[in-house]
Amino acid sequence: MASYLVTGSSRGLGLALIARLATLPKTEVGTIIATARQDNSAQLKEIANASSGRVQIVTLEVTDESSVKEAVAAVELQLQGKGLDYLVNNAGVLDWSPKGLEGMDNLNETFNVNVTAPHLVSRAFLPLLHKGEKKTIINISTTLGSIARADVYRSMPSPAYKITKAALNMLTVQYAQQYAEDGFTVLAITPGWLRTELGTDRADLPVEIGAEKVLDIIQKATPEQNGKFLNIDVPGWHVREGPNQYDGKEVPW
Amino acid sequence: MASYLVTGSSRGLGLALIARLATLPKTEVGTIIATARQDNSAQLKEIANASSGRVQIVTLEVTDESSVKEAVAAVELQLQGKGLDYLVNNAGVLDWSPKGLEGMDNLNETFNVNVTAPHLVSRAFLPLLHKGEKKTIINISTTLGSIARADVYRSMPSPAYKITKAALNMLTVQYAQQYAEDGFTVLAITPGWLRTELGTDRADLPVEIGAEKVLDIIQKATPEQNGKFLNIDVPGWHVREGPNQYDGKEVPW
Repeated sequence: MASYLVTGSSRGLGLALIARLATLPKTEVGTIIATARQDNSAQLKEIANASSGRVQIVTLEVTDESSVKEAVAAVELQLQGKGLDYLVNNAGVLDWSPKGLEGMDNLNETFNVNVTAPHLVSRAFLPLLHKGEKKTIINISTTLGSIARADVYRSMPSPAYKITKAALNMLTVQYAQQYAEDGFTVLAITPGWLRTELGTDRADLPVEIGAEKVLDIIQKATPEQNGKFLNIDVPGWHVREGPNQYDGKEVPW
Repeated sequence: MASYLVTGSSRGLGLALIARLATLPKTEVGTIIATARQDNSAQLKEIANASSGRVQIVTLEVTDESSVKEAVAAVELQLQGKGLDYLVNNAGVLDWSPKGLEGMDNLNETFNVNVTAPHLVSRAFLPLLHKGEKKTIINISTTLGSIARADVYRSMPSPAYKITKAALNMLTVQYAQQYAEDGFTVLAITPGWLRTELGTDRADLPVEIGAEKVLDIIQKATPEQNGKFLNIDVPGWHVREGPNQYDGKEVPW
């Protein structure tokens, strides 16, 4: 009966992760904390209302340290003395810069949301994670953050997203190194190109499949995988090369 | 007679690069622009004064777009209608966080100096670089920014430096991709662990050696190397593994 916290749960992958978690048996999944910036997602509320108290919505502006602190206190109350097992840093932003680097004026803001916020959230939840059994932090990354595979994504005009996700990958490794001795498992996971507001309708996979496959990785994660960058595993998408490869393997940095 | 601009030239590697450039024959090296935040480096002034006008000091606060714009105008005047051949983004900061991630409170500031500033400077100098013959941008990076080699640097408590330099590497690749067709060469270079204020007295190499070896790479750089992450080449330091490897090869991302 592990507990989960997912940031950025009002829509997209975050919402789909909460929806999926709420369908899993209570022997596997206990308290589910869905955090969102604002209390305005009808879909999230619907899931929470139908969950008999299992899904709890907590307000969290991930870039605001005082909001993070308040969220930790709220989560601590809800866990009733237990620890937090899984923290999923999912909240993030994608830039779209048709002029490429010449139009990239949002680098600091993108970094603040995609890298500094996961740091602030992870650091603040460390005491509750230490108390948890699984001690697992998941940073939702992307293959677009793989410098080794940059050629594949050359035509995608989202330089700030690529740059900040590469940084998030290094943040992941820093956490993995520092808390390895305490039994932590810290992973970067690429959820694939999903049909969400961020991914657009042209994306490869329905968001529900992405959420299911990400949770497959999370639930099987072991300390031996600590510090790795993992791809989802989708049958039929084990192509050899290219952007649309979901082979369940490690992604090169 | 190529022209050079080096940011962060008041001390450390930047100062050593300017000092070294000023010793090279005028058939190779023409105008040398040394930029510094403040006009207060006695050593830099000494080099400029002894250079018969070849070394020009320009004030540049790399994180301030209006200062960048003014510097571009000043450099344009000094180049007297010619283009800029080599831009070396050297200015950078290193954090030191003995408590590791729990003490990392400077991530946004470090990113602003180490990543956003090289972007602002590179973007602003693009017109002059387009006019230059070499069209070369060098970002001074570090093996500590290599995620693939993170294990080697595990004990170095500089998480913000590592995270932001990984991001700088991805920025380098973004520039390399976008301006490849225009004949640009954009490189990340790791200068080695040098005896400077940043590197401390315990470092491997005198800063003069680092500057010499970095310039060896810069002067031999070709468009075929565009987008690569290169190590300096120091005889006697071609060890197989470990942090102190200066083998002149590509560094894994």
